[in-house]
Order: sequence, then C-alpha cells, then structure tokens
Amino acid sequence: MRVYNFSAGPAVLPEEVLKEAADEMLDYRGTGMSVMEMSHRSKAFDDIIKEAEKDIRELMNIPDNYKVLFLQGGASQFFAEVPMNLMKNKKAAYIITGQWAKKAWQEAQIYAGDGAVAVASSADKTFSYIPDCSDLPIPEDADYVYICENNTIYGTKYKTLPNTKGHILVSDVSSCFLSEPVDVTKYGVIYGGVQKNVGPAGVVIAIIREDLITDDVLPGTPTLLKWKTQADNDSLYNTPPCYGIYICGKVFKWIKKMGGLEAMKAHNEKKAKILYDYLDESKLFKGTVRKEDRSLMNVPFVTGNEVLDAKFVKEAKAAGFENLKGHRTVGGMRASIYNAMPIEGVEKLVEFMKKFEAEFEAENS
Amino acid sequence: MRVYNFSAGPAVLPEEVLKEAADEMLDYRGTGMSVMEMSHRSKAFDDIIKEAEKDIRELMNIPDNYKVLFLQGGASQFFAEVPMNLMKNKKAAYIITGQWAKKAWQEAQIYAGDGAVAVASSADKTFSYIPDCSDLPIPEDADYVYICENNTIYGTKYKTLPNTKGHILVSDVSSCFLSEPVDVTKYGVIYGGVQKNVGPAGVVIAIIREDLITDDVLPGTPTLLKWKTQADNDSLYNTPPCYGIYICGKVFKWIKKMGGLEAMKAHNEKKAKILYDYLDESKLFKGTVRKEDRSLMNVPFVTGNEVLDAKFVKEAKAAGFENLKGHRTVGGMRASIYNAMPIEGVEKLVEFMKKFEAEFEAENS
Repeated sequence: MRVYNFSAGPAVLPEEVLKEAADEMLDYRGTGMSVMEMSHRSKAFDDIIKEAEKDIRELMNIPDNYKVLFLQGGASQFFAEVPMNLMKNKKAAYIITGQWAKKAWQEAQIYAGDGAVAVASSADKTFSYIPDCSDLPIPEDADYVYICENNTIYGTKYKTLPNTKGHILVSDVSSCFLSEPVDVTKYGVIYGGVQKNVGPAGVVIAIIREDLITDDVLPGTPTLLKWKTQADNDSLYNTPPCYGIYICGKVFKWIKKMGGLEAMKAHNEKKAKILYDYLDESKLFKGTVRKEDRSLMNVPFVTGNEVLDAKFVKEAKAAGFENLKGHRTVGGMRASIYNAMPIEGVEKLVEFMKKFEAEFEAENS
Repeated sequence: MRVYNFSAGPAVLPEEVLKEAADEMLDYRGTGMSVMEMSHRSKAFDDIIKEAEKDIRELMNIPDNYKVLFLQGGASQFFAEVPMNLMKNKKAAYIITGQWAKKAWQEAQIYAGDGAVAVASSADKTFSYIPDCSDLPIPEDADYVYICENNTIYGTKYKTLPNTKGHILVSDVSSCFLSEPVDVTKYGVIYGGVQKNVGPAGVVIAIIREDLITDDVLPGTPTLLKWKTQADNDSLYNTPPCYGIYICGKVFKWIKKMGGLEAMKAHNEKKAKILYDYLDESKLFKGTVRKEDRSLMNVPFVTGNEVLDAKFVKEAKAAGFENLKGHRTVGGMRASIYNAMPIEGVEKLVEFMKKFEAEFEAENS
C-alpha cells in the first residue's frame, strides 16, 4: 500500500511514472533491455535524452539562447560550479535566505574570499521571511547575484525576484522546479537537483544562457565541471545518469498531460491553500513563515510544544502520513507538498490534523 | 523478450536484480514508497547504503583502514579528484594504456603541468598490449602511480600490477570491478564508475586508504570533491544517487549468491575462454590483443575487412546479439562479457560466429 509521503526530498513521484518504469524495467519498448543497461550512445537513449530536453523546453518555454544541461553532483557540487564558471572579477552577491544559500555563499568564498558578499539575510528571524531585495548594495563589478528561490527547510519562496541592478541572476530552484511558470529570460542560470519535484536523486538540471558558457573559467576547474564541456557535448561528454534522466523525462510527460506549468501552479496553490487556511484558523498548529513569503512546496508548522510535536509526528506516521518531522533547525513539522502530492493527500492530512486538534482540546479543556 | 547485450557500458545487469527492482518500484518492502522517493536520511535508505557497504567489503575483503565512498560524476570527474586530493609534490606517474588513462593524465596536467608524467605507453600499437611495468622511471617524489586496470576500448588488462617502487597505486577498475578477487592492500585508491559491472550509470565507488583522506587538498578543490567531506559524512554530505546505490546493493547480493569473487572469476574465465578459443582457431575472426594481456571483460575482434565487419554486426543484431560494434578507434567488433552476461550468451554468440564463418567460406571458396 502506498503512503502519503511528505518527504522534503527525495520525494514523492507520480504513481503512473513509477508504474511505467516498473513495466519497462526488463524490456524498454522492445529493445530487449532496461534503460539501465543501455549504452548512452545508443539510438534508444539518444531519443530519451532529446525528448526530455524538448519537453522541458516546452514546459518552461526556454528560449533558444539557453542551454539545458543534465549534470551530476547535486546542487552542492553546483555551488562550486557557479563561481568556477562565472567569476571574472571574483566578486558576487549572495542573498542568504537559508542553509542552502549560505552553503553556496561559503563555497564561493573558496574562490573569491571576501569578494563573495552576503548582501542581505533573513538569519535574524530563523530565515522565516524573504528580505526586501528591491535596493540591495550589489557591488558594481559583481559577476552575478545568487539566490535560493524556494527554501526547503524554512518554507519561504521569493514572490518577486531581486532587483539585480543589471547583474546576472543565478537561482537554485531545487525545491520549486516545474511547480509554476517561470520567465526564464530573467535569469542567467536556473538550476536544481531534481530529487524534489522532478525525479530521482543524482541528476541536476541547469538552464544556462549561452553567452555565460565559455572557456574562460577559473584555473583548476575540472573538465567535467566546466559548463562548456557539457554544453559542447549535449551532456554526453561522459556517461550521464541515464536512468535518472529517463525518469525525469517521464515526469515531464506527466506534467504536460496534467496541463503544463499553469495547471501545475493552480494544482499547487489549491493544495497549499487547504493547508495554510487550516493553519491560519487552528488554535493548536501555526505556520512559521511570514504570510507573503510562504512557499507552495514546503509548509513548516509547529504547535509550540516539542513533546506535542513529536506526538503528532508519531501518530501521523501510524495513520499513513510519512516524513512530517520538521528540519532540526526549525523543529516542529514540515509538509512538503510537491507536484506529485495528490490533493487528497493534503485533504486527508488536514482532516487528521483537525482530529488531532479536537482530541487535544477535549483532553485539555 | 530480452536480448544478449554486449554493450561496453552501461551494460547488462542480472535479470533477477531488475525483476526485484521492478517488483519493489511502488512499495519498497512495506515502506509504501519507491526507493526513488525515500529520504536519504530515512532508516530504510540508511539500511540500504550500510548493507551495500557491508556486502562490498565482504566481497572484496576490504581492510578496515580503507573507506568505501559512493560518489557521483563518473570516472571522468574522479580524474580531477585524484590530483586534487593526492598531489602534495605536484608530481605523478601515469601509465598510458588507452583513452581513459590518457584522459586521466591530461586532467592531472591541469593541476601539475609537466609534473604529471607518462612513464609508459602502449600507444605505438593502438594500445593492444600492457607495457612492461617492472622497472619504470617513476619520479622519486611522485605522489602516486596511476593505471587504468582494464581497458574497455582496447580489451587489455593488467595481469601483474606495476612495480610502483613504493609509491601509492591509484587504479581505475571501472570495467573489471568485482569481476575477480583483488588484493586491496596493494592499492592506495581503487575506484570505478559502476555502469559496467555493478549498476546503473551515475555512481562511482571509491575504496581509499584512510591515511590518504586528508584536509590537505589542492587550493580550489570543491567541498564535494574533497574525499574527506564524503568520508566524514559516510557519503551522505548531500543527497547521494540513492537509486543507483540501491541497485548496486542488489548486484552485490547477487554476486554473493553466485559464490563471491572467486566464483565470479571462474565464471568469467569460462566465458572468455569460449570466445578466445574460437578466435584463436577461426580463419575469419581474430582478436586484436596480445594474448597475455587479454581482458576477461572486453573482447575486441576483427575480420580485417570493414565491410564484412559491418555485415557481421548487422546480422548479429538481427539475431538478438546487441552492441557488438567495436569502438571507432579500434574498428571491428567488441563483445563486452561482464559478470551479468550469462554463459549461454557467449556460447550462442560463438555458434552464430561459426555459422557466419561457414557461410562466408562457402560463398568465397
């Protein structure tokens, strides 16, 4: 029996994608082999990766002057790739909205030292909001401005992109990838690990404006971490994570069938509203994020009592709601409600929360 | 219907491993989710990765003073990790037995320039042999000696390890991983991409002597490419390629069930003998590698006539023998007969080759 899986990532995938993958495991469409067993230079895999690229281009309306790369190493490795590939002046502006933005900033310091500047932060309130980014002190010679657009741990999301004052915007969208329409032209680089909204861990998708892909990288950049290597070889310089790319491709097809990113946004807003509306009216549970900065994907909430939080997580698990424990830095609970989380999952969770609240009130009145 | 898949990599996997993976795709052992959907911090995944490590330690008899790391990026990324982590004197000796050793050497030149020395090469005869490595001009202050132990493209394998004159040996075993017993203590670093003998593309397994894992890395080494980061976090510094590790774990179990590496070696020798014996007696087909250096895993052969080679590959494909075309640098054919290739696959291939030869003789006599 399948559970409702609220994991922050790796996370729930569409059931029909998994069913198809299981059906094709021993014989992918008459090839007589699994996609795992297939040469990455074969016609069958070439069709898979090309079709995946075509579909994500269509879904995100990616202009022709952007490359789509399928990479490895997770966002954490990409933290190094950003300065390695983009730093010319060894100067960059980072907006610190959580642990991942901070780690990216720290990685940039390996290459730029103090040239990697934190121009804003919401650390003062446990990253529970997105700072005002309308007029930041971005160094004039900054090579780029860096954000983590949706903060998985803290449950915040940029509703307006920062004013970069003409600088290139680099955005880590790992936990909001394909959750709503995006204007790609506003970014220099959009990238994310796929293991939240798009596929299995082990694939990073990067969408990079072509003029930013050059041979002018920092000395000591490994060949494989140079975006030009990957772009010149259509992500096939070496063996890519083929099976992961294949699953991503299936998820792209599923999103298209669901109606594309506009429909996905409506679906995600509907789900999030059910949960946030309840959190706003509940006397027991409350959200931890400033309302205007709330993520559609990750919803942290607390009772204010650690023992009670633990009781809730335990009872929820027993009732088939998995992975509701919050990140240790925020405590409490977190429901990650990515694209593939069905609306019934959220409805039933809220139903369960109401029951828990009613029982708590009965016991304590 | 499954074909006989002679792909050089990604390559054939044991059918029972794929069946199990398909069966567990929607619900891994009662967890209610796929391994793809599982947090890498969950108990279920922790069991998977710990069990995988335990099994490979047992199979390879890995001493306690070696770490086992599950990494990403393929061997090509590891080419950079070797100098980044091991170079103290910026001096290293590379033995060039093919394209992959050469690429590793070129990558080391990014960091050491002329300090990365090619101390031997078999380029003079299209890498069809392993050079004599008993007394090589290894610089006294070399940080390590590097080899590619089995050469996928050219079909050669070291039968004796080089005399490193007391230096650390680093070996890329991508295409002979777990194909026979190994004395781990003779190496400083053994590593390989798993996509030939062990699992799906996207996982690198590295077995590294503990004293070689330090904070003393080259400046500019990305956090994730520093082995100490990965070792200190048991390969869970960031989200690892979970699904790939899970499949590797199943392959380890399969090898154990088959009798371990001694049995695997016997199985591989038996398969290779069938093919090599035929190549040695055939008037039409011949092997391209010096006999004493022949690989058990990759068997290149030619007719000496390109048109005939192409005809053979085409007819073999039609008869259910896939991916027999040789690498473009060698031409002709190549049969990769990794662990998971059943003996019937090789028997039937040789039967088919005999038939092809008889028909050719009949037509040309």
